[in-house]
Formats: sequence, structure tokens, C-alpha cells
Amino acid sequence: MAGSTFGNIFKIMTWGESHGEALGVVIDGCPAGLSLEASDIQTYLDRRKPGQSAITTPRKEADKVEILSGVFAGKTTGAPISLMIKNTNQISKDYDEIAAYYRPGHADFTYDAKYGFRDYRGGGRSSGRETIGRVAAGAVAAKILLELGIKISAFTYSIGPVICSAEPEVDEKVSPGDTSKRNDAHLCNSLLNEKVVKFINECKEKGDSVGSVVECRVSGVPIGKGAPVKNGVPGETSLPCGSPLPLGIGEPVFDKLDAKLAQAMMSIGAAKAVEIGAGCAVSEMYGSKNNDEFCVNDGKISKLTNHSGGTLGGISDGSDIILRVHFKPTPSISATQQTVDRHGQPTAVQIKGRHDPVIAPRAVVVVECMAAITMLDLMMTNMTSKLENLANFYK
Amino acid sequence: MAGSTFGNIFKIMTWGESHGEALGVVIDGCPAGLSLEASDIQTYLDRRKPGQSAITTPRKEADKVEILSGVFAGKTTGAPISLMIKNTNQISKDYDEIAAYYRPGHADFTYDAKYGFRDYRGGGRSSGRETIGRVAAGAVAAKILLELGIKISAFTYSIGPVICSAEPEVDEKVSPGDTSKRNDAHLCNSLLNEKVVKFINECKEKGDSVGSVVECRVSGVPIGKGAPVKNGVPGETSLPCGSPLPLGIGEPVFDKLDAKLAQAMMSIGAAKAVEIGAGCAVSEMYGSKNNDEFCVNDGKISKLTNHSGGTLGGISDGSDIILRVHFKPTPSISATQQTVDRHGQPTAVQIKGRHDPVIAPRAVVVVECMAAITMLDLMMTNMTSKLENLANFYK
Amino acid sequence: MAGSTFGNIFKIMTWGESHGEALGVVIDGCPAGLSLEASDIQTYLDRRKPGQSAITTPRKEADKVEILSGVFAGKTTGAPISLMIKNTNQISKDYDEIAAYYRPGHADFTYDAKYGFRDYRGGGRSSGRETIGRVAAGAVAAKILLELGIKISAFTYSIGPVICSAEPEVDEKVSPGDTSKRNDAHLCNSLLNEKVVKFINECKEKGDSVGSVVECRVSGVPIGKGAPVKNGVPGETSLPCGSPLPLGIGEPVFDKLDAKLAQAMMSIGAAKAVEIGAGCAVSEMYGSKNNDEFCVNDGKISKLTNHSGGTLGGISDGSDIILRVHFKPTPSISATQQTVDRHGQPTAVQIKGRHDPVIAPRAVVVVECMAAITMLDLMMTNMTSKLENLANFYK
Amino acid sequence: MAGSTFGNIFKIMTWGESHGEALGVVIDGCPAGLSLEASDIQTYLDRRKPGQSAITTPRKEADKVEILSGVFAGKTTGAPISLMIKNTNQISKDYDEIAAYYRPGHADFTYDAKYGFRDYRGGGRSSGRETIGRVAAGAVAAKILLELGIKISAFTYSIGPVICSAEPEVDEKVSPGDTSKRNDAHLCNSLLNEKVVKFINECKEKGDSVGSVVECRVSGVPIGKGAPVKNGVPGETSLPCGSPLPLGIGEPVFDKLDAKLAQAMMSIGAAKAVEIGAGCAVSEMYGSKNNDEFCVNDGKISKLTNHSGGTLGGISDGSDIILRVHFKPTPSISATQQTVDRHGQPTAVQIKGRHDPVIAPRAVVVVECMAAITMLDLMMTNMTSKLENLANFYK
Repeated sequence: MAGSTFGNIFKIMTWGESHGEALGVVIDGCPAGLSLEASDIQTYLDRRKPGQSAITTPRKEADKVEILSGVFAGKTTGAPISLMIKNTNQISKDYDEIAAYYRPGHADFTYDAKYGFRDYRGGGRSSGRETIGRVAAGAVAAKILLELGIKISAFTYSIGPVICSAEPEVDEKVSPGDTSKRNDAHLCNSLLNEKVVKFINECKEKGDSVGSVVECRVSGVPIGKGAPVKNGVPGETSLPCGSPLPLGIGEPVFDKLDAKLAQAMMSIGAAKAVEIGAGCAVSEMYGSKNNDEFCVNDGKISKLTNHSGGTLGGISDGSDIILRVHFKPTPSISATQQTVDRHGQPTAVQIKGRHDPVIAPRAVVVVECMAAITMLDLMMTNMTSKLENLANFYK
Repeated sequence: MAGSTFGNIFKIMTWGESHGEALGVVIDGCPAGLSLEASDIQTYLDRRKPGQSAITTPRKEADKVEILSGVFAGKTTGAPISLMIKNTNQISKDYDEIAAYYRPGHADFTYDAKYGFRDYRGGGRSSGRETIGRVAAGAVAAKILLELGIKISAFTYSIGPVICSAEPEVDEKVSPGDTSKRNDAHLCNSLLNEKVVKFINECKEKGDSVGSVVECRVSGVPIGKGAPVKNGVPGETSLPCGSPLPLGIGEPVFDKLDAKLAQAMMSIGAAKAVEIGAGCAVSEMYGSKNNDEFCVNDGKISKLTNHSGGTLGGISDGSDIILRVHFKPTPSISATQQTVDRHGQPTAVQIKGRHDPVIAPRAVVVVECMAAITMLDLMMTNMTSKLENLANFYK
Repeated sequence: MAGSTFGNIFKIMTWGESHGEALGVVIDGCPAGLSLEASDIQTYLDRRKPGQSAITTPRKEADKVEILSGVFAGKTTGAPISLMIKNTNQISKDYDEIAAYYRPGHADFTYDAKYGFRDYRGGGRSSGRETIGRVAAGAVAAKILLELGIKISAFTYSIGPVICSAEPEVDEKVSPGDTSKRNDAHLCNSLLNEKVVKFINECKEKGDSVGSVVECRVSGVPIGKGAPVKNGVPGETSLPCGSPLPLGIGEPVFDKLDAKLAQAMMSIGAAKAVEIGAGCAVSEMYGSKNNDEFCVNDGKISKLTNHSGGTLGGISDGSDIILRVHFKPTPSISATQQTVDRHGQPTAVQIKGRHDPVIAPRAVVVVECMAAITMLDLMMTNMTSKLENLANFYK
Repeated sequence: MAGSTFGNIFKIMTWGESHGEALGVVIDGCPAGLSLEASDIQTYLDRRKPGQSAITTPRKEADKVEILSGVFAGKTTGAPISLMIKNTNQISKDYDEIAAYYRPGHADFTYDAKYGFRDYRGGGRSSGRETIGRVAAGAVAAKILLELGIKISAFTYSIGPVICSAEPEVDEKVSPGDTSKRNDAHLCNSLLNEKVVKFINECKEKGDSVGSVVECRVSGVPIGKGAPVKNGVPGETSLPCGSPLPLGIGEPVFDKLDAKLAQAMMSIGAAKAVEIGAGCAVSEMYGSKNNDEFCVNDGKISKLTNHSGGTLGGISDGSDIILRVHFKPTPSISATQQTVDRHGQPTAVQIKGRHDPVIAPRAVVVVECMAAITMLDLMMTNMTSKLENLANFYK
């Protein structure tokens, strides 16, 4: 599993499985001098905790973070930051049966095939609990970004057929992510909350699950004064396109900002598609429509639209970065399914246990955190793009 | 631009820009003992060359590969393989004007912002010619994969509104990729060729361009005997899902097969979305529909459907790997557009020069090559997943 | 401190500082299927613990390892292995004074300069306790190597002017490393123990410290039947040079076996020189003497001498790998020294506290562990050197 | 040979073998805005060329560099820089015989063992010509460092028993490296040139070769005003220890400055030992002698001596960085040696051809170049060590 490391300078290594002692992450390359305490991280972990609303699994997980290293007198020292979250409510008897067969849509089969062996107490490393390490590290990255004037906020964009417009009706002054924390499904638009909860509950009653989409936006703080933009297709936005997001983030050609974001997002369990800006819609658009024309606002070069989702040539163009991640339905369903047991014999199964019927609401914070880690790491590399930068630093 | 390296063991570093002396790639970590000659690579480069059909740019580019190192007596030696393709037809006068302003949809603005300076003779490193290094390296990876029984084939899935079914009507026995080489637009289904060519020509006449999608499939050779599967939504396939593709490819959690494929694909210029298997469609599906049930075929564990696109938990599950890449319309259009010049003054521009009106036909081979490099590299890492593997190797 | 990761496939990230909550390491890429329990690791940690003999610091540190992830039912699962060792006896009052000035020979000054801030409770991340993570990870690597027939053993080669011959007098059948565990200073030759202990005690009484050398040998198990070799200069050895160590380990040109070993060893605190095989002695030798002639033993190609220290062209040649690491004297001495305080004022200091007067005895196990990690990681990469290897694996 | 990449941000990939078409390097991550032309690189390549003086091989190699990418209008663009040097005088008939047997001291045997196959026209990738790529890349790194006020200069420290004092007698104002370019053996002290040339010629007449040492110093420019220091043991220096070399370079714990320098140096063919500062001498020193006391000079913290060789805790301390590399004697000697042929039969051989009898004089520039690449890469990473640095950059 030689793939638990992410990032080149701000580098994280996550560890832990659903029914082990603990989960966690080590962050290496975190700059020194950041004020950091457990509560900064706990806030993010609490957002991913189950049992928070009617629509998520009623399992209780304390998920208390401990900072084991890298912080002294309330500040990061530059040394690796080790964060640990103990497992406290992992009742493996709920899962015992799964040792016997391969659950459809789960990684049981592929883990057995690859490692010759699997932790059958639960999903092991392929469990959703794996994201705890990502969230803990992402909380640190997000705090740094905020100090640099960058805000990352994600929300539930759709649940099954119910699509939530990306524009917040209730309060124009809050960004989508802020709004998303106020309702059960982390929707941008709270007005749809009731409809969504009803839909999900029907789904649960049928023993089924449903797919969903998370949208994430990275923007400068405070939001700048770009030109008003047209709405409509995904990727267009009423947020000013000229928000003061730093230019130049992303390293062509393989570590383009969008390429690393795509890896980051697709590495989240159950993600099956990633879109940047207008995303899939571009494949049916004409160039004359899709090209974002440049304009000047307050003496700054800006764009009239933001179909590009904030990147041109893999480098941030100053507009908001916009991406969407499509999650498959939770594979654990109580409906009867055909499968095969470990001896290669066909069998029929019904998955028991307490599962989220839809992934997006709890994945919102995971998407934010992966975006934060990706952004910060590329922002660090970007500091060396010009000789002038080195000369200024070392003069 | 500290991002020109891809892969962990089979590692490539590409170089070169549109109007420089040459372009190329160095491959490190290529196994010794592969028979390799220039023609193996030339075949792939010829597939990406412009001027091949009515629908691509009439520019002529010889794009002859030279093998400069790493091959002796017709075989790879284990030493780095340096491949160079000289630029021969780069008439920069076609592009001179672009120095003065930022072309909408291009990377001119972001390169200037990041590097303080840009190669205004053409797209420079952000040009489509950058893909030459990818294709040269991918040809080597694809040859190795073929020796290991793995075939990668891509085709044009859609051009604007014209969607080409993934199922080849003409000849059941050829795989989609083979068929794709026989018609102008590299469509899987040649019956649609006439329709597509007409659509593109209309687009060109209007001075416009259009978006497109490439689909890519990785399968075992010869194609295995899986159960017949249902058609319909993207990601389902009439190809047997139980083709003998190796199990276990992909390194959770950040270097999952689908995550690295997503990075690889999104790193191709103009890509704006990546889907694996059923892709975006999963977000509207129910779990009872999306889960691929397991079955037994010829004593092997297989799946009844392949919505997963060949990966479970980020690890290959033995079914065909299926992905789609959405490309935006070519940003170079002759219609008048608003933009800004280098002095920050608004201006109106019309892009001249010879450009492809649609990206997919020439991107087909680039997608194949990036898939090959990604697969091979992860297959190498996978060889160390079990202690038993090391013990067998070093006994 | 973006340098806490080591290894490409068997990849470790260490964390923790002298006076934090805990120290540890995460190992990613450890093969699945290894029997592993805490005692396997504890054995190695106990060897580095202080307070074990008359010549090391009397500080007591429990240094109990906890396995937090990656092991299930007594076997590694392929998931990251998180190992934690809690700090229990870190009395920072011993060190309070050091906040005020820069200790000569320590990293206080450079940490302050680099990070703008330092953990003044002790050495922080530059403390010798940092090696705990290395030892914990190295114990796992060493266990794997032993299963593959490879044994790593180090010993104290010299302490100040007292040089311990590399040849064990007492018992011909034990390898140097085994012998080393039987006496206070981890000398290869126990007959010198009394002399060494006396020398060190004199040193302590004077409030001084002294430099030392550790030698490490990597050999095949059981030791093979090479030709007898001549003794004398460092690097020659009476161990048969044809021990069945695997051939081919090391990746030219930058990740040669000797280059990665040199990095691994020089990264240990207080290391100031690394020698491979005959090492420094080669610079005064003639080619006719230094070249190791090849011979045939039991049908296997072997070498008559081993000045090369087991590598040719950066690749293991089947002979024992031999290296030596030179450690500076412990910088913490009670003699009065001139230094500068944090306000840039000259001051005179005497370092208090309980310190080892010599580094080698406790560094022996650290050297072994770094050698084990380096070897194992390169052995994994080596599995992909030939196409034939891939073909055998994936057939 | 998955080890041809070095560096994390300023990343190079070298390629090419002794008898191939060409050799070269690709540099990724080179900052944009550096004035660069072929002559900047040619100067360095000319220093490593053979046939320059009585003591090196009379082989003629033109070694003309071509810049293939990454430079436009005389400046680096940020895109990868591809440098190629064609092979023009590689007469493989000189080497034909070596296909039949394994040359003692060469990598013939290990390459055959690892890759199942070797380029028997010459040393292939293990030839000294491999260093061409290192020198080409190092010339670029050295130019950047000079613009940042950092100078790297190496010289021949010893040849066999003849040791050249590190202090230049002739001209106090030139640094060791400058002096070294003025005599046949690149000695720091030209007064010893005659003695050394005589010694080497005697060696050649006997058909033998001899070992040697290169010393390298990295210093700030112009040389600062540190306190005078005591001479004598290696590592002490009459150069002011307080030269304005940047503080903070090096990433604990595995990518410490000295650890990466050790890897860089030991990766050069024929290197068998690396010393930093006082190096091996520390192992016989007392702490009271070895510790460098701190002092204040012109308001700056400095050291009274420089036994540490410019690093404390793996981080640059502002003093000159001093290292020494021990090279074995050239393995190609004309004396008769015992070896084994490819069929495992013993045989006696005499190596023909034109070879350098000693490695240091031509390795001087290689050592400088590897030091430059290592320094620059770590200086880039260091720019992100403090949050304050990011905040200043992105404000």
C-alpha cells in the first residue's frame, strides 16, 4: 500500500484502519510559526463525524484528536506534526459476517487479491474512517491558507436527482461552504433541505442508497470586486471571478493544479468522476461560448466568466477554483445481492450494520481538506518559479 | 515548472516546447530486455501527428523519433531511454501577434504571471506539442504492457452533441481502439464518421471549435470469458467484464489506480473532467443498481456488470478499466473575442493560424499513452505488495 | 523540515522530539504477510535505550512501542504501520537553561535560524531521541531481511584512539554484530571491553566526550563458502567474500546502494564521515592492490578480496556490504565553553545534564536499522530491473 | 536503473552511456529568468574533458553542449531545460574485448547480474562519461548560486600519498577552487604540481593507477569578515568561518544538508568515502576540541572554528561548507589480473585502452557540480520553512 503519502513539500502520510487502535496522520514540511491547537483540528473532525443529523449513520464516534509532536508553546516548530485519533466505538461484531464473502461494491475482493489477506473486521484501510487522517491534515492546511487569505468551502451539490443550485439564496454574504454547515445535508441552499431529507429517508426505508455530488470552491478572502458574471451552466458563478486568489499555483505538466486536484479527489473512497470548472459540460460546448474572455477590473486582469474553474494551462488564473466530485451510492445496502464467498462459491447476501445512505454530506469536509492540502503544497513549490523570488529571499 | 516528472519506478521526464529545437522524454526505470526500435515509437507518434485527415489541422510535422540512449543491440539495457523529436515545421510568424495579448482560453496569462516571462513564439510548454514526450514514453510502456498481455485502446466517444456508442457495430471481434484507427475522427463506430466530419466542417466554417470526449479501455489479452453484461448507461459494456486483467494494480490511498489515472488524464491540456466506469452517472444511481454483483466464471471470480470501471477500493478488480476524458473546445478560434494586452489594456482579437477545431481525435493516442504509463508504473509497485512475492524473487 | 521521509517503496516518515508527548514512525509500503508483534520491535528499541551499561547516560527511558495500525491477527496487512513510543522520563528542568544560549556543537543556533523558533525544552527534533523512529522502522525492515536470508550487524569499531579489530577473536562462528551485543560498548571484540570502559570513564571524569566509529556488515545467511581473504586494511575481511547476498541491489546513478547508504548514515545525528569497504584507505592505494579480482567458488562468481565493500558500480556484488560511520564526540560536555546567547551577547557556558560521553555504543543499532531500511527499499525496486521479472510475476 | 533522478524541486534526470549516440540531462524546476547560454555550460564541460593535461587520458572528446529547450531570448522560461552532448569519439574497438570477461573493479559483473544484459561496448552507464549530465546540470545550478552570492569550488586534495594543503600559498586572495584550475592536477597548491605529475607518470609507467581525494568548499561571496581560525586538522580553515553563506539550508532528518551531499558525492563513480568538515578525524577527537565555539563578528553570530564543516543538525550554520570525497584508483590498469569470463571460467586479463591513472583531477568539476545541485535544491525547499515566508510571498 505504498501510496499513503501525498504532497511534495507539505507532505502527509496517513495511517489507520476502521477497527484498529487508532487512525492518524503525520504532516512533514508544515511551516514553523503557525498557531495550532487541538481545537483547530477538532472542528474539522466534528464536521465529518457520523451521528450528526437524521440522514447520517447513527454510529457514535468520538474522534478526539491528540497532537503528539511538532507543536511547542502553541506554535508549529517545523518538525513533523503527528496527529492521532483513537478508535473508541468500533464494534466489530457488527461486521463479523463480512469475513466470509466479498461485499459487492466494496474493496474486500481486491484487498484479498492484492495482499493475500485482509482485515475482515470491517473495511480496514478501505473504510470511510480512513479519511480521518486526511481531515486532520487538511484542517492544518486550511488554517494556513486562511492566514494567507484563501478560503476553501465545499457543499453538497446534489443528492440523487435533487440538484442544489450553487447560488446561496438565503444570505448573499456567506460563501457556499458557510451555508452548507447549517443544514442536515450540508447543502448550499438550505431551502432544499427538507426535500433532500425526505428523499434520503425514503431511500433508507427501501434499504437502498443513492449517489451524490460535492462541489468545492477555493476563493480569495475577502472576496474581490470582479465583473458580474452570467449564470446557468455548471462552472459559471455569480461570485466575482476576480477574487484575489493567488496567481501561478500549479506545476505543469503533470502536477498541474487541476491534475493534482483530480488525483486528490479521486483518491477519496467512492469518488468516480471529477470535474473542474464547467467540467463535463465543456464537451458539448462551442469554443466561442466556453472561452473565458479577459477584462480589466480595478486595474487587475480578470475574466468575464469562469468556465475554466480558475485554472488555465494547469495554473491558477486568479478566479475561484471550482470543482465537483461525483460519489457513487454507498455500497452497503440491505437489499439482497448476489456475490461469491471466499471459497469461490456463489452466495446471496444482505449487508447489515449502520451505514450512511448517501456519501456527500459527510464527504464535504473531506473534499475541502484534500483541496486545502493540494493547494498549499503547490503554493509552496510555486515560491521557486522565478529566479527573482530566490534572489529576494536570499538577499 | 517542477512538475515534468511522472511515475514512481517507471518514471518519465518530458521536455520541449512548441517552437524550440526539439521535444522529448527521458524514461528512467524501464526494465531491461525489451526489444525496442524507433518504429515501435514512431507508430504512436504518427497517430498523433496533425494533417492526417480532413478534420485536423493541415500543419505538417514530421515528428521523427530518435533513440539516443538506453538501447543496445535492439534491446533496452535498463539505462535511461532518451527519446528526441526535432521540431521542423514551427513557423513562428503564424504566431507572432500573440506576444502582444493574452489569448482567451490559453495559458498565456498564467505563464506570464507565474514565470514573469513567456515564450511568445507559440504555446511554448502549454502547446499541444508538449504531448509528444508523453506519446513517445507511452509507446514504450504500451509495448511492455502488450508483452504482459494487456491492451490499451482509446477512441473518440463524442464530438459536441454527436455521441458514438462504445460498442463497435462493424466487427464484433475488434476492440474499440482498433476500430478507432480506421476513420477520420478515431471513432469507435465508423458508421458515424460521415456525420461527425460534416459537423466539424460546419464548425470550422463558422470559425468556431467544439468540445469532445475520449474513452479509454484497458483490457487483458486475449479477451476472457466473463458473463454477458447489460448495456445502457456509460460504464456498462458488452465486453466480457472478466477479461484476464491482472488484479491488484493500484496503491491505496492516494495512489489508487483511479486517482493516478485521474491525475494522468487531467494533466493533458484541455481536459476538464475525468470519469471512471459509470463516472458522473453514479451520482444519480441507486446502490442496488450501481453495485456490481460478483459471480463465478470458469472458476474465476468475476462481476456481472462493470459500473466500477475495473477498480474497487482503488485496486484493479480484473474487469476492463474504463475511463472517459472530457476535453474543452480548442481555445484558438477565429471569432472575435475580448481580451487584455500585456499592458493591461482591453483589446479585441481574432486568433489566426491553423488549428484543430476539436481535440479528441488527436488526443486519443495521448490518452492511451498516459493510461499505459500509469498502469505500468503501478504494476511495478504492486510486485512488492506481499512478503511472499519478495521471498519468491530472492530465494 | 520537509525531510522526514525516507525510502521510495518501503517508505518511512518519522516524527517526534525529545520532550514531546511521544515519538514514532509510520511505515508505508511494508509487504503484507509478515508476522509482526511488538516484541520484534521492542528488542531493537531496548538495544538503543540509555542506562544499559556503565558507559551510557544513566537516564531511564522506558521506550515501549505500541503498534497502532497495519497489523491484524499477528500479520502485516499491507496498510501503513504506525508505531508510537511515549515519552515518559523527559524532565525538561534539566534543560531549562539551554533556552538562553546556543550550545556549541548542537543545532540550537541553526534551528532558531531556520524556523524562527525552537523547542528549547531539549534538543527537540535534533535530539538523539529522534532515532527512536528509525529504530522502530528498522526493526521491521530487519525482520523482513532475515526472512529473505539477509543479516545486518553493526558494532563499535573504535572509541577515540582505541580501535577494535573487525575480526571476532572469541568465537569464530558468530558474526561481528552478535558479539557486539555481549559487552558494554557493543565492541566486536569483548577482550577490549575493559580497556574501553576505563578510557570512557576517564573521559567522563574530565567532563569531556570523545569520537567513535561504528562498522556495519550486511551478509547473506547462512554465510557462504567464498575463498579465504587477506586481512589488514579496513575493508578486507576474513568473512568469506562469497556469502550469498543477493546481487543487483542499488539503482544507478543517484540511488546507488552506496549512495543511499551514505545518505542514510550521514543523516544520523553526529555522523561526519561515511566509508564503504576500504573507504578512505582507497585514496592512498594503487589500483593493482585495490581492485578485487574475481574467482569461482562452488560454481559461483566471487571475489578474492572485498575492498569494494560489496558494491560495484553502485550495485551489490554478492560480497558482504561493509561500511563505517564516524561520529563526532557528544557535543554536550561539562567543560566551560564560549558561546553566544539569543540576544547575540557572548557568554560562557557549562552544559549540565546526563549525557553519553561517546556516541557509538548506542548508535550501533541505529546504523543497523538505517542499513536495513535502505537495503530493503532498494531490494524492492530491484524486482523490476528486468522485463523477464515482470513477465514471470504477471504470467 | 530507476535512480537517474536527483533533487526534489530543482530536479535532474541524467541519461546516456559511454558509446551511445549522446549523453545529457533534463533539468526540471529551474527558476525562470536566468540568463543562460551554451557557453555557461561549456565552460564546465571543458573542465571535465580528457586530454587537457599530461596526466589525463589522451582521448579526445569534443563534448559540445546543445540547449534543446527551456531557454528563450537568452533566458530560462521555467520549462524543463534539455541539454544534449553528442558522442563523437567513442571508438568501441578499443573496448571490444571486454565483452568476454568481467573487469576487476568495474561494474561489468553487477550490471550483467542486475539487468541480464550489458552494453559491452564500454562502461555503458557505469562509465565516467555518465558524469557529463551531472556537469551540464551543475553548471546551471552553479550559475544560479553565484547570482545568489554563493560560490562552490573544489580542488585535488591528495593524489596517493601526496597531500596538498588546503591553504593556497600562492595567492591569498583566490579561493581554493580558483587556484585549482591553474595546474595539471587541479591542485589547490600549484607548488606541488611538479611533484604530483612526476608521481603520476611513474604510476602510468608501471601500468598502475592510484587513489585520490577531492575537497570542495561552498562559501558566500564576497567572503565575509569572520574571526581568524586555527589551522591544522582537516576541517579547520584559514578562510573566515563567518562568510555570509545563507543559514538554514538542509531538511532534517533524512534530507539534512550533509546527508544529501553524502548521497550526491557517493553516487559519483569510484567514490568510496565522504567526509564533512573534520570528517574522519572527529572519531579520535575530544568534544572539548571538536565543538566549534560561537562568537560575535560585526554583530553576526559566527564560529571560532569550523570542524562542523558548515552544518549543525544537518542545517547550514553560515560557515563554509567543507567536504572531501575519496576516490579509489582507476580500476582500468594494464597489469595482469585474475578474473572470470562470462561463462564462469577463470582467466587472466590486461586492460587495454586510454585511461586516466587517477580520478581526482577530472572529478573536481563533478564534485563541484553535484554540490551545486544539492545546495540549490535544498535552498528552494528552505524557502517554505516558516509561515512568515509564505505570508511575505503571497501578501
